[in-house]
Order: sequence, then C-alpha cells, then structure tokens
Amino acid sequence: MENDLEYIYLVQKKAALLQGIMALLSWDEKTHMPNDAIMERADQLKLLQDEIYMLLTSRKLSSALCRLRNQRLASRHRMIITELHKDTQKLRRIPKEFLERLTRAETIASQAWEKARKKDDYSLFAPHLKRLISLKRKEAGYLNPKLKPYDALLDEHEEGMRESRLTDLFSYLKEELVALLKKVQETKAYKNHKELELDMPKEAQESLYHELVRKMQADGEALSIDCSAHPFTTRISAHDVRITTRYLNPLEALFSTVHEAGHALYEQNLPSGFRDTVIYNAPSMGIHESQSRLWENVIFRSSEFWDGYHDEFISHAKKKIQKSSLFKGINQVRPSLIRVQADEITYCLHIILRFEMERDLISGKVPAKDARSVWNKRTKSMFGLKPGSDNQGILQDMHWSLGAFGYFPSYAIGTIYASQIYKAMEKGIPNIRKHIMSRDFKSIVDWLTKNIHSKGRTMTAEQIIRKATGSGLDPKIYIDYLHDKYSKIYRFD
Amino acid sequence: MENDLEYIYLVQKKAALLQGIMALLSWDEKTHMPNDAIMERADQLKLLQDEIYMLLTSRKLSSALCRLRNQRLASRHRMIITELHKDTQKLRRIPKEFLERLTRAETIASQAWEKARKKDDYSLFAPHLKRLISLKRKEAGYLNPKLKPYDALLDEHEEGMRESRLTDLFSYLKEELVALLKKVQETKAYKNHKELELDMPKEAQESLYHELVRKMQADGEALSIDCSAHPFTTRISAHDVRITTRYLNPLEALFSTVHEAGHALYEQNLPSGFRDTVIYNAPSMGIHESQSRLWENVIFRSSEFWDGYHDEFISHAKKKIQKSSLFKGINQVRPSLIRVQADEITYCLHIILRFEMERDLISGKVPAKDARSVWNKRTKSMFGLKPGSDNQGILQDMHWSLGAFGYFPSYAIGTIYASQIYKAMEKGIPNIRKHIMSRDFKSIVDWLTKNIHSKGRTMTAEQIIRKATGSGLDPKIYIDYLHDKYSKIYRFD
Repeated sequence: MENDLEYIYLVQKKAALLQGIMALLSWDEKTHMPNDAIMERADQLKLLQDEIYMLLTSRKLSSALCRLRNQRLASRHRMIITELHKDTQKLRRIPKEFLERLTRAETIASQAWEKARKKDDYSLFAPHLKRLISLKRKEAGYLNPKLKPYDALLDEHEEGMRESRLTDLFSYLKEELVALLKKVQETKAYKNHKELELDMPKEAQESLYHELVRKMQADGEALSIDCSAHPFTTRISAHDVRITTRYLNPLEALFSTVHEAGHALYEQNLPSGFRDTVIYNAPSMGIHESQSRLWENVIFRSSEFWDGYHDEFISHAKKKIQKSSLFKGINQVRPSLIRVQADEITYCLHIILRFEMERDLISGKVPAKDARSVWNKRTKSMFGLKPGSDNQGILQDMHWSLGAFGYFPSYAIGTIYASQIYKAMEKGIPNIRKHIMSRDFKSIVDWLTKNIHSKGRTMTAEQIIRKATGSGLDPKIYIDYLHDKYSKIYRFD
Repeated sequence: MENDLEYIYLVQKKAALLQGIMALLSWDEKTHMPNDAIMERADQLKLLQDEIYMLLTSRKLSSALCRLRNQRLASRHRMIITELHKDTQKLRRIPKEFLERLTRAETIASQAWEKARKKDDYSLFAPHLKRLISLKRKEAGYLNPKLKPYDALLDEHEEGMRESRLTDLFSYLKEELVALLKKVQETKAYKNHKELELDMPKEAQESLYHELVRKMQADGEALSIDCSAHPFTTRISAHDVRITTRYLNPLEALFSTVHEAGHALYEQNLPSGFRDTVIYNAPSMGIHESQSRLWENVIFRSSEFWDGYHDEFISHAKKKIQKSSLFKGINQVRPSLIRVQADEITYCLHIILRFEMERDLISGKVPAKDARSVWNKRTKSMFGLKPGSDNQGILQDMHWSLGAFGYFPSYAIGTIYASQIYKAMEKGIPNIRKHIMSRDFKSIVDWLTKNIHSKGRTMTAEQIIRKATGSGLDPKIYIDYLHDKYSKIYRFD
C-alpha cells in the first residue's frame, strides 16, 4: 500500500511537470516562436502528450488506484485517489488511435477555420465542422456512454452539468435579459447615446494595465504579461503563471488584461498542500470564468472603480472625456453581432445562441451544412440583427474549430457565479466599495483565495460556490445585479 | 536490419525533440521565467534529461548499433551510426548516479560562484571548485580512461585535441602575441590614445543591431533576439534558432549581438538532409566559435565595415565622433584584466592563462585553494597587471563553476580558424571588402554555409577547415592577420 501511494504521487508529479512543459511550449508558440517552426513544435507537443497519456493510462497506475480505493486512507489521499481514478478511467476508455485521429482533425479544422476567416466564407469550414462533430459524438460515447452525447461533452467542462438543466436556466435567463434590454432600450439615455472615441498610445496603456495587474497581485509576485493574437492565461509551474493580452483599442485591452489576470489569480492561489496532484486545479471552467468575469465586469466596469480611476486613466488619453461619459461608454448596452464585444446584458444571449447551436449540431438536428443559415436566423430573432458576413456570424469564435463543444455555457455559468460571489463579498468585506475605488484589492484577493482558489478540486464548482455564497448556481442574483447596475446608468425602475 | 535502422532514426528524432524542448526551457529560464520558479524548472529539465539519458543509453539502442556496424550500409547511414555509437558508448560509460551527482555539484557550484561574485571573494568559491575538479577528474576517467584527464575533457569540446598540441600551439602564439603587443605599445598612436566615450539610447542600439542581424540573415528568416544577463545562442528546432544579447554599452552590445548571430547562422544552416540525426550539429566548439568571432572581429571590427557604417551609426550617438577616432577606439589594443573586454591581440593571452590554470588544476599541480594566488601571479607576468579584486581576476568567468573545463581553448582555436576562413573567403569571394562595406553579406553567408555550416558532423572540425581553407589549424595565419591589421592602425612595420 505504501508503495502504491508513493507511486501515484510520483505519477502525478511527473504528469504535472510534463503538463507545465507543454504549457510553456504552447505559450511560446503563441508569443515568441517563429511561424516556420510550427511543425516541429507540434511534434514536440505530441511527444509529451503521448508520454502523459501513457503515464496516466498505464495498467500499473490503474491497478494501484484500484487497490488503494479498497483501503482506509486519510481523507487527503482519498480525495486525490477519487479524482485521479475518475480522470484516468475516462482517459483509458478513449483508444489512443482515436485520440490521435481527433487531435489531427482538430489541427486541420482550426487551420481550415483560419482560412475560412480570411475568405470570410463558412462553406470552407463546413466539411471540417461536420467531421469534427462526428468525431466528438464518438468521443462522447467513450467518455460516458450512459449520457447523451452533448451531456458527456458538457461534463468535461462543467462536471455534473446537463443540457436539460441548462435549457431551463437559459430559458429563464433569456426571458429576463430580453426584458431588461427592452427597458434599457426605452430610455432616453439609450437613444441619446454617443459612441465613445478614445485614443491612447500603446505605451501608456501598457504601463497603466501592468500597474492594475500589479495591484491585483496584491502582495504576490509580478505576473508576466506578453502579447498574443488571442489573450490567454497559462500555468507553467506553481510559481510561474503567465498571461497574454493584446492592444486593439484602449478599453478592450484593459478589460482583456484584467480578465486574464483574474484567471491568473486562481492559478496562483490553488492549494499549495496539493501541489503536483490532480487537486491542484480548478474544478470546472465555469468557476474559472467566474474569476475572470468578476474582475473584468463586476469590479473593473463598476462606478466605484471608475470614480477612483477616471482622472489617472484619462490623463493618458489623447483627448479628454468627462467622467460620466466615459463610464456610460464603458457600460454601453447595445445588441450586437460579436460576442467578445458584447455588453453585460446581451453577453449571455450570445452564449445562449451558441448553446442552442452546438446542442443541435451534436444531436444532428442541425446539419453542419445548414449551420450558417440557422445561425443567421437565430441571430435575427435574438438580436434583431443580420450578420453582414460569416466573420460577423458563425465564423467569429474559434472554439468549435478546436473541438471545444460544450465550452460556451461555462461563460454564462461563470458570469452568474461572478455576481453571486460579489454579493457575498459585499457582505464579507467591510468597505469593499471603498477598496475598489482606491484600487486596494488585497481584501478581495484574500477573500477569493480563501473561499474559491484554495479549494482546488476538493469540492465541485457548485459546492464551492454554495459554501462561499450560500446558494448554488443562481441566475436571479445575476439578473438583480444587472438590474441594479443598469437601472442607475440608464435611469429606469 | 531494416528495423534496426528505423529504430535508430526514431531514437535520434525523439532525442532531438527532447533536446529542443530542453533548449526552450533553458532559454525561457534566462529570458522570461520569474525567479521563484527556478526549482520547478530544474525538475522539468531533469525529467527530460533523464529521458534523453535513458533513450541514448538503452541496451536496445546499443544492440541495434552493434548489429548495424557489422552491416554494409550506404555512407550516410554509416556516418550516422559511427557518430551515434561514439556518443552513446561514451554516455553509457558514465554511471547515472555519477552524472546526477555531477549535475547537482555544478548547480551548487554555480550558485556559490554567483555568491562569491557578489562578495568579490574567491574563498567562498574555492571549496566548490575543489569538489568539481575531483568530480571532473572522475568523469574524465569514465569518458576515456586511456587519456590523461585533461585530454579527455578537452576531447569533449574539440575532438582529437590534446594538451600537448595546445602547449606547442600556445607557446608559439604567446611569443608572437607578446612581440606584436610590444610593437604596438612602442608606437606614438598607442601612447597618445584617448579613451572612447560613446553614449547611445538603448532603443537606437536595439534597432541598429537588429538591422545588422537582419543583414546577416541575408534571405533567411528574422532571428529572434531577447535580452539576458549573459548572451547566448540556442536551437529549439531546425526552424527556431534564437539569440540573446545585453545592452551594457553601445559597442559591447553591437559586438555581442553579431557574435551570437554568427553562432546562429551556423545552427540555421546545418545540413537539412541530416535533420534529427547526430550529424545535425557542429563537430566542435572551436569551429562554432570561429563563426561568432569571424563576424564579431574580422568583419564587424574591420575598416571596410566601419567605412561604410560609421555615418549611420554615429548619427544615433548623443555626441559625434570622427570616423578615424571611432575605428581606432573600436580596435584599441590595451593589456587588461578582463577577458571579455580584451582586444584581438591580447584576447588569446587571456585564453592561454586559463588553459594553463585549468590544466594545472585538473592535474593537481595547482590546488584549488592556491588558484587565486597563482592566477594573480600569472596575470602579473602575462600582462604586467595585478587584479584589483577577485571579480577582476579568477572569479570573472563562469565556465568552471558550470564544470566546463577544457572549453576555453575553443575560443583561441575559433579565433585562429576565423582568420583562416577570412583569408580563404578573400580568395573565393570577389569584392568581399566591398560587400562588407555595403553590408551586403549574402556572398559571405553563402560561402560559410557551403564550406562550413552545411558539413555538420560529416567531418571533424579540422577536416572541414582544411578542406575550406587549404590548411589545418594554423596560428601563423592569425598572426599575419593581426600584424596586417594592427600595423596599419598603429603604423609600424
């Protein structure tokens, strides 16, 4: 038994090291690597991926885990064994040849997506999407043959989440959001809104946003920030978490930077006692997104924050803007075609559109060849807008091209969790609004570390949220948050 | 047989991938990684190092190689098998436990060296040096028990080179260099020389030197250039070679950048037909250094280059300097204490000092505890100067702290080779001086690729040089080169 325990810790340590190395290879690919090296980088990644697969699917590990599961062990060990067993059994059910086929198909599909984006033509991507869908259905069967395919895929990103629950959740959310949007649209402020025009040198943005991230890091280490086409966060080792950002326009860069820094705080504050084990991870994508969206939206788009930050921020802009105009511009509500530019009210509508699309694609109700027309029809009915092109429509997100079906709902779940967390923090942290105004984030980081980050995978996401906020996933709190905030900005009841 | 061949190619491919990943981990450690992550990075490197060791020392590989060595094979295969057999047999002779002990000792010694540098006190480093010397003697015994320990270590960097040959070479060189130095020192120009004072914003340097590197790349890909405390070149994959530099003062930065870019050209132009085999490497450190020193000294310190470059360069300096003063300043001869700041005439004297030191340290003639006093005495006799402190003396180079005994001579060998190569290029490339003046380096890069880089390890370093220049290692050509150049600058016969 002693040896089995030692062995499973050793395997996890080795897997963690290899995963960290893979994270570095990927980070580098997107930040520093010359384009010409892409094939060799793929070979390097595949080599390590194969090693991790062999390590985690070995009969030796499986036998050790089986023996350990029948032992009486301290709860720490039991927790690790349960999660590791779950992960590895799932992996063992997927044949290696299939996994390789899927990976190859994803690589080809994402290249096809890039090409289709360049030509702004979905039909170049459609056959690849079709092939991916068929492979993902097959993968779902391996992952959990007892579940509906889409449920099995959902479960990978949000353990325990089911299509039926999401259908209910989203139907409530849609109704409430549409109603709220209507209220906003009927106000004078909405009708009179002028487009925000903001210009700021890249160097100024860089130094401002790096400083904000340092404030978010409270007393932690400085976080490394590089540029990449699509911002992301990665953990190379426990002491080496990195984010990337991009500078398209000043506000997008700000929100994108603090969004990633929110993810980074999670990765940096995982339970150190569980380092190099499966527990040293977030339990779901939804709870991870709750952290990025808490910082991005709830904190950094709040009136408290901009009350305290406006003067410093605008002093770096090429043209001055009044405090109230900037704040309203930042929180401008407007139905639009592009998810990543959406405001807080319409954002989840974009997610619901994608949920419905991928659910129907995976079930076969919508064939890949019809996806464009269905997308456009549903966009029209959801937002009253018609995509001017595929890039503004079905080609706008890269997720499906990477095989990430069932991921989109995590954004909505995270958004809802974020509002729940903020409500709980308001109770738990005296003067939180003052802290936000003065950019003194230590109490917030401490609260998040204690109640969210340091739990790792010792509980499910919903258990963590329930313990931290008093309730499970609760869209009503999100609607209340939105109502409260936007009724003040747009002046309605 | 077919299977054996396939197997050895597979092993080499896997080793090349792992070595590339290790190169990235090391590059990142020195350019981007946060300090706190150093222990985890060491674990990541050790994991891959162990895999490479296991891969290359396996009985399976050894048996396959033995069987193949008895077969009749195409010369390409034979070449690979010979070199791979040599490398792996050597590795197999070193016990894994010993290798780990050595690596640990090197890590500890280099940390001790850093500390000793901070306190400017050799005595803090002496016990570590003593321990390393004893381990390196042991390693030498594993590597080649038939050779003297120092010869076995030399052979690792310059295959076939022996202490006895170096002793002769360096005795000739020392005599000639001292005589040349004396001639220089007797001139009026030497006595009247004024210190060069040059100030240039870092941004201007960066853009100037990146442009020079682009010119050196001729029609190749742009080379990535990052900053690190000690400049280096690394190959992460065939299409991903990177250099680092540092900006201490404008001219040092220039020479350091083009020095590394010279190394990089070698790594970029290795024989692509031998990619992912042992042949896809330089055959020795000496020939590698010949490339960096050719660019750094022979080309970028030449009057042709500065004739063409002066005006553009100096337009970025804060204060103008006359063409002749700048050129003389760049080529100022002056006995000094610091190797990396030495001019072309005294540089090899620094190497000779180090060769004599490490030879005597390894043989035991000079015990580590006496190394400082011996160093200082020999410095006095070589340069007529006394180190003001250990940092200006025995602590100035990090090589020994990393266990790199037998490496220093490569710098002198490379320096000599560089002058031989230039002489051959002068014959082979019409108007080479004009090309240098106009910074049109394509003909030079093509010549080097054809005659040096593309040979990989298909021949020994000296064979390559002989074929390319008509003679083996020939210090007389170097002395002639120096005499020709410096007699013009300092005006003597």
